[in-house]
Amino acid sequence: MGGKPTWLYQLSKAGKLCVPAMNVNDSVTKQKFDNLYCCRESILDGLKRTTDVMFGGKQVVVCGYGEVGKGCCAALKALGAIVYITEIDPICALQACMDGFRVVKLNEVIRQVDVVITCTGNKNVVTREHLDRMKNSCIVCNMGHSNTEIDVTSLRTPELTWERVRSQVDHVIWPDGKRVVLLAEGRLLNLSCSTVPTFVLSITATTQALALIELYNAPEGRYKQDVYLLPKKMDEYVASLHLPSFDAHLTELTDDQAKYLGLNKNGPFKPNYYRY
Amino acid sequence: MGGKPTWLYQLSKAGKLCVPAMNVNDSVTKQKFDNLYCCRESILDGLKRTTDVMFGGKQVVVCGYGEVGKGCCAALKALGAIVYITEIDPICALQACMDGFRVVKLNEVIRQVDVVITCTGNKNVVTREHLDRMKNSCIVCNMGHSNTEIDVTSLRTPELTWERVRSQVDHVIWPDGKRVVLLAEGRLLNLSCSTVPTFVLSITATTQALALIELYNAPEGRYKQDVYLLPKKMDEYVASLHLPSFDAHLTELTDDQAKYLGLNKNGPFKPNYYRY
Amino acid sequence: MGGKPTWLYQLSKAGKLCVPAMNVNDSVTKQKFDNLYCCRESILDGLKRTTDVMFGGKQVVVCGYGEVGKGCCAALKALGAIVYITEIDPICALQACMDGFRVVKLNEVIRQVDVVITCTGNKNVVTREHLDRMKNSCIVCNMGHSNTEIDVTSLRTPELTWERVRSQVDHVIWPDGKRVVLLAEGRLLNLSCSTVPTFVLSITATTQALALIELYNAPEGRYKQDVYLLPKKMDEYVASLHLPSFDAHLTELTDDQAKYLGLNKNGPFKPNYYRY
Amino acid sequence: MGGKPTWLYQLSKAGKLCVPAMNVNDSVTKQKFDNLYCCRESILDGLKRTTDVMFGGKQVVVCGYGEVGKGCCAALKALGAIVYITEIDPICALQACMDGFRVVKLNEVIRQVDVVITCTGNKNVVTREHLDRMKNSCIVCNMGHSNTEIDVTSLRTPELTWERVRSQVDHVIWPDGKRVVLLAEGRLLNLSCSTVPTFVLSITATTQALALIELYNAPEGRYKQDVYLLPKKMDEYVASLHLPSFDAHLTELTDDQAKYLGLNKNGPFKPNYYRY
Repeated sequence: MGGKPTWLYQLSKAGKLCVPAMNVNDSVTKQKFDNLYCCRESILDGLKRTTDVMFGGKQVVVCGYGEVGKGCCAALKALGAIVYITEIDPICALQACMDGFRVVKLNEVIRQVDVVITCTGNKNVVTREHLDRMKNSCIVCNMGHSNTEIDVTSLRTPELTWERVRSQVDHVIWPDGKRVVLLAEGRLLNLSCSTVPTFVLSITATTQALALIELYNAPEGRYKQDVYLLPKKMDEYVASLHLPSFDAHLTELTDDQAKYLGLNKNGPFKPNYYRY
Repeated sequence: MGGKPTWLYQLSKAGKLCVPAMNVNDSVTKQKFDNLYCCRESILDGLKRTTDVMFGGKQVVVCGYGEVGKGCCAALKALGAIVYITEIDPICALQACMDGFRVVKLNEVIRQVDVVITCTGNKNVVTREHLDRMKNSCIVCNMGHSNTEIDVTSLRTPELTWERVRSQVDHVIWPDGKRVVLLAEGRLLNLSCSTVPTFVLSITATTQALALIELYNAPEGRYKQDVYLLPKKMDEYVASLHLPSFDAHLTELTDDQAKYLGLNKNGPFKPNYYRY
Repeated sequence: MGGKPTWLYQLSKAGKLCVPAMNVNDSVTKQKFDNLYCCRESILDGLKRTTDVMFGGKQVVVCGYGEVGKGCCAALKALGAIVYITEIDPICALQACMDGFRVVKLNEVIRQVDVVITCTGNKNVVTREHLDRMKNSCIVCNMGHSNTEIDVTSLRTPELTWERVRSQVDHVIWPDGKRVVLLAEGRLLNLSCSTVPTFVLSITATTQALALIELYNAPEGRYKQDVYLLPKKMDEYVASLHLPSFDAHLTELTDDQAKYLGLNKNGPFKPNYYRY
Repeated sequence: MGGKPTWLYQLSKAGKLCVPAMNVNDSVTKQKFDNLYCCRESILDGLKRTTDVMFGGKQVVVCGYGEVGKGCCAALKALGAIVYITEIDPICALQACMDGFRVVKLNEVIRQVDVVITCTGNKNVVTREHLDRMKNSCIVCNMGHSNTEIDVTSLRTPELTWERVRSQVDHVIWPDGKRVVLLAEGRLLNLSCSTVPTFVLSITATTQALALIELYNAPEGRYKQDVYLLPKKMDEYVASLHLPSFDAHLTELTDDQAKYLGLNKNGPFKPNYYRY
């Protein structure tokens, strides 16, 4: 659904980007919809379709409290799960605290949790050592990116038996009989085992289309061989196109108010650094 | 608690800023703590201390769905109020929709709501016309900025009677006997009728102190006569200093992971445009 | 999963019950698990598997605010839907108010909602007249009992076209092209389109088994040809058997405390009229 | 606000009740409003007014998960606290699990929590031993009944210093300097340090008045020297009288529906054992 723009920035830094590029992945509407709001629903959907697990009372550890992690945690907490967070970034960790989650190292809770969910964008967040210590029937899945977050390769060893119990669901069986339930072989749960609502697709596609139109129509010189964020006004335009489906009614600034705020009545309404 | 940095940017734009300035108001820790997390608590506290209103079942309209509005709405919804939002910015409006709030124009709900709360940073958001249409006992207060959001001046007319019922609480009485309950004469409820937790003061004071130290210690030439955001690493440092009070345990990147992500193990952990 | 015990009481009233009967359906563990907690999850699961609908921002009306309705509403609200309630019972209606839902008549919101869910135990709650007034793409489903809550028969008329779009999902198409999305032909969504967690099955099965054992072992004369609720102590026993799966640690009364409360240290802990 | 009716039942059991009595305390509207819904708000209010504590990120243990405990926990969780429960009753304990709380023995968490709240109706739930093990600045308060839940007497010993820091707030100081913040000397926080909304008073007073009218008007023989629950129809009447203040619109049964359900169109709508 867009993917991480890190390589674009790396190309640009190396001077190897030969055309202007738009980082649509980090537009507000993309971040919040594809990530926060979409994952809030797809974590539940993905887990239910594959395992029929009941969420109420389950202990869950979510690795990473970015937009994806925030969405997963909000949904699971709302349905009665007890959620722990692991984080490397102190700001996100403090947010987790204020949102009512204990911030722990994975080792502190790995023996007691019923579900492990990775949302870090990192690699080897769940290692063989962690997998060895999980309790029987622990469910492990990845909502982050790619298939690197769980060290699945480390599970392909002779002493462990793999049993495919249904599509996208493997039981990995330890010599003592312990089973770990691995979903989608560590690939993205939300893409493998859930669906993406058409509403989210519409937002993402609109953002991408507008970015292309902007790059194509821009007067020469506006964009160089670099990576740009979507102009805020366009981000706001994408949002405004999707408000009618919620029957949402926007308020208009009066001339007097626009002047007071130093804003154009048609936006953009926020400085570039605004976080939403 | 810091205030809007708009005038700093205006001074800078006009070339009248004679020293470098740090916009600490828009650091992450400041925005989230002073605004989102603090207002989530102080809206309840401010309303209770002044009016003893029961939140359950009340209809409330919140004008503005920025950080302050988001905090107020989350708290009121959690305690059983039915919350409507007004917004001028389509992105914030779409967020309100996804968070489960109806986005309306103030006129659509003004006759039915029990509480009106402004959090816009704007002026004359609640006008005399709105006040005339409110129902008896409607509570009106301001969580935004300054004292401009509610047009209180328009209420100082001969046909209306003011009755001070207790400190910070006025009944404004219409000729037909209708009373509107005005809190803090339209000034900031969170500063006038609630308290600021020492934890939040600590975060804000730390941020301000670090900004001053940075400006003082910076090698010549790092900062010009302009407005700067707090360097992300310092923002992260403020957060990390406050984690121990929650007994939160941060995870450290391995060398391999840091290399994979292209990050320094000590941060900063996010690009500047990251929204948290 | 047990079903309504109304007919048992009717048989008993008519003097036609020829053996003692246990109304296990109204034991606490059955009511809360099969109904409140299970439906809180299966409403989301049932809707997702059949329609992939995004919950955020959707307007939903739930008919009936009993245990099933409470579960459905809590889940949908938590995921960002705006939920309206219809009720016939003023106590349940007042609970809905205090939980933050508007209580309306179905006609007041039928034109604007995206989803209609019945949980009443009643019949013809959604009539042809309601169906005629729904907007295009409105989803209609039944979480209550049997298949009587939605008047599906009224939709089997020549002017409407039925289109089966996938298993359990029909589009009913009006002459003007409007489509209503009918799930499971009005039968129970939670049984037709979702799964029941084994944890809930375990609770229900344990309750039923204990009731049979009690009836079989009871000394002659304890039970007559009548309908009985499960003895509270047995209800508590079912609960205590399921606590270890949550690693929950119960506190024991001291002798002194038991005496103070006038309770046996092993329960039962509540009077029969206690509501939980 | 009514108090525990245990002594009424004890009088009745001992044959010493000389008039009929109504247990209004256990009417639905009383239980839910005075206890669940009212405490959901007054726990926040009571803690804020006395201590200005920030709820976000705080670790709290709530002793007892009855109506009062459920209200306290819902509010604190919603505002970002991490809540642990202690319970003696396995049914309430299982409810706590499903609502997303860890059920522990007090000793397991007493060293780490920031706030201890009792809601048990029991005595000596918090003992001197617990108080000795609390961390510095731990807040201790009682939302349950009477002043017996916290063993305050055990704190009146020479080695501990009491410091009254403001009305209803004492610091109890250990020889090593540790301070425990005791609210209202262990009496009811909601009555001592918070207010009761007029709405709740109205419900309670209506219930009490109706009970008296019923006892006075009842034909001879309807009530003997025993304890009765409020007739359900009256409970429903109290609720219906309070719906207009929420602009809630009740649905009426059709004749056909009433017949199908075997109900009178005017109620009562539920069997006596219904739990709401």
